[in-house]
Amino acid sequence: MNDSEQTTPNQYEGEVGFVEFEDFVYSKPFHFASGGMIPELTLRYETYGHLNDEKSNAILICHALSGDHHCAGVHSMDERKQGWWNFMVGPGKPIDTSRYFVICSNVLGGCQGSTGPGSVNPETGQPYNLDFPKLTVQDMVKAQSLLVDHFGVDRLHAVIGGSMGGMQTLQWNIDFPERVGRYIALACGARHTAQAIAFNDTGRQAIITDPNWMQGRYEPDAGPAHGLAVARMMAHITYLSDVGMEAKFGRKRRSGDQSKEHFDVEFEVESYLRYQGQSFVTRFDANTYLYLTKALDRFDLFGEDKSLDSSLKGVTAPGLVIGFTSDWLYPPQGNREVVEALLRLGKDATYAELAMDFGHDSFLVRAPKLYDLIRTFLSR
Amino acid sequence: MNDSEQTTPNQYEGEVGFVEFEDFVYSKPFHFASGGMIPELTLRYETYGHLNDEKSNAILICHALSGDHHCAGVHSMDERKQGWWNFMVGPGKPIDTSRYFVICSNVLGGCQGSTGPGSVNPETGQPYNLDFPKLTVQDMVKAQSLLVDHFGVDRLHAVIGGSMGGMQTLQWNIDFPERVGRYIALACGARHTAQAIAFNDTGRQAIITDPNWMQGRYEPDAGPAHGLAVARMMAHITYLSDVGMEAKFGRKRRSGDQSKEHFDVEFEVESYLRYQGQSFVTRFDANTYLYLTKALDRFDLFGEDKSLDSSLKGVTAPGLVIGFTSDWLYPPQGNREVVEALLRLGKDATYAELAMDFGHDSFLVRAPKLYDLIRTFLSR
Repeated sequence: MNDSEQTTPNQYEGEVGFVEFEDFVYSKPFHFASGGMIPELTLRYETYGHLNDEKSNAILICHALSGDHHCAGVHSMDERKQGWWNFMVGPGKPIDTSRYFVICSNVLGGCQGSTGPGSVNPETGQPYNLDFPKLTVQDMVKAQSLLVDHFGVDRLHAVIGGSMGGMQTLQWNIDFPERVGRYIALACGARHTAQAIAFNDTGRQAIITDPNWMQGRYEPDAGPAHGLAVARMMAHITYLSDVGMEAKFGRKRRSGDQSKEHFDVEFEVESYLRYQGQSFVTRFDANTYLYLTKALDRFDLFGEDKSLDSSLKGVTAPGLVIGFTSDWLYPPQGNREVVEALLRLGKDATYAELAMDFGHDSFLVRAPKLYDLIRTFLSR
Repeated sequence: MNDSEQTTPNQYEGEVGFVEFEDFVYSKPFHFASGGMIPELTLRYETYGHLNDEKSNAILICHALSGDHHCAGVHSMDERKQGWWNFMVGPGKPIDTSRYFVICSNVLGGCQGSTGPGSVNPETGQPYNLDFPKLTVQDMVKAQSLLVDHFGVDRLHAVIGGSMGGMQTLQWNIDFPERVGRYIALACGARHTAQAIAFNDTGRQAIITDPNWMQGRYEPDAGPAHGLAVARMMAHITYLSDVGMEAKFGRKRRSGDQSKEHFDVEFEVESYLRYQGQSFVTRFDANTYLYLTKALDRFDLFGEDKSLDSSLKGVTAPGLVIGFTSDWLYPPQGNREVVEALLRLGKDATYAELAMDFGHDSFLVRAPKLYDLIRTFLSR
């Protein structure tokens, strides 16, 4: 049986409802692991639920490459786009906002309100573009820690995230072990494979060789749209699975045979992917894409001495890592080896592998087994 | 044990040596399955070995998407690039040119001397570009059959090919069963999956959205080089395997850390792939890439009535289909299902699956087990 099958009615009633984002401004210099510095930073974030008096019920959710701070609820009647993990976060939902105070911020380097390459450098009055410092997952986590400080939270009840969010989750446990109560990392791993780097670099080349990229100095509304769309189309394929794509699209044709326009959309899957590429361009910045994919490629918990164990030896919180059988971008094996290292080190860690056909994106899909794992682990 | 391991010394001595290509010109109208027509066609080809008096020892080799007619030997001391299947074709080699007369032609639609979108339409004096008729694997095979006629060969001893060449091989058995003595199709299948179409369309979008494409009307030396390079980088990833890439490149870094040039080559795999993209541009035409990938996407032996059996029912020759365990572009399953249909139909067909880590490109790799299968089946 497939773990994503809806075997029971959805018992998780209730919705976050309307939410507003806010901006946290840190007005002091922020230093990057690379040695770079920016004079101040902003993180855009949303929260759901209420922080208790003890400040002990905060959960930090870390988003993936193309995600953002809008994790649950809707912004208004006019902007009814649900947050990217809306089914997971809400009153009575697996990440239960009637119990927990949930924080989700757009990452440092992002393009949805947090400081990133497209932000104006207050010292020059010009966008950073490629003057933005070299970015790592460590930097993202350090910036988030300042936001957590801002709420007066010493110790998070939990840190949770999938994909790039899973890497941030692991990094939290390395850089701030005393501040993590427990953690759940989904569809991630200790480092990118050569294949994952190869896909990312191909996407970057699509962007960089687009004449509108102009060494990163494009106007916000005149960026390398074609290159970014191609990068997204390709990446999107890697987020799905062959089985999932076959079931959803197969060889369905979009319309009659275009004998004149050879390279118009012919198959449904082409239409779907081209739309994904186009719509991504309207909401995402190309330089942020370059910076974030580089941060992912450089993330490597094996570190300089090639040992996961030495990276993870300081972890103290209990952890759950979840891999997905059809995820070929961040395959189960990469998730498992993190837990194997943790267990070798005598840590309280566990691994679950869900049989779902949605590929890497499985963690973004409604699935009762996933609900149960997360709900239960959070209240353990 | 891995089937590609060199367990015995290479016993296949001898080389094709120097070869010259020739051009076969068919000076009559050629009609495409789509209804299109060109007033004449040229196929560039090479041959190795000698056609016997009975004209019964000819083997046709069909090349893959980015291959060409230069299958074995070298052109001259100055042009010492070996043919793409040089290890397979030669005196004493698995496709033994001391016994067989081997023909390999650049496909119709190609860009290495055969008539394709970049060729001049004799009726207009201008390149066809997108006026070149819609192309299918059927058309490629029909053009090859004219070349086989040219040699006075009624019946080929064998037809052999991998990937797109495997599709042509299967198509030969459908369109000209009486002309095929036996056949070997490697790393192919009855049709593209949604994922394979998705990758191809992403590559096409990279080309088409490159401003230098200009609706296909670019000058030969000013084409969409960036788009074509990106398409090739992506496709090249799909020709390899995650395991193979990990073994070859892993996370090896090319040079020191480029703190200034954020998006220069950092990892070895990036350097390798960018080089693949760049060098492809110097030898391949973007419009041909569009036409050939479309022909691949449209190839579908399940046909309009969704039945492999009805497509294959006319096959008469004995056949060997070879899949490769690590091929995720044309997975073993797609190869197996062709043989299953043939067996269901009572045909003489067999399937072999080789455990090799080179992904889809495994059929292009030296491997004693592959040698033995091909050598033996040809002389069966």
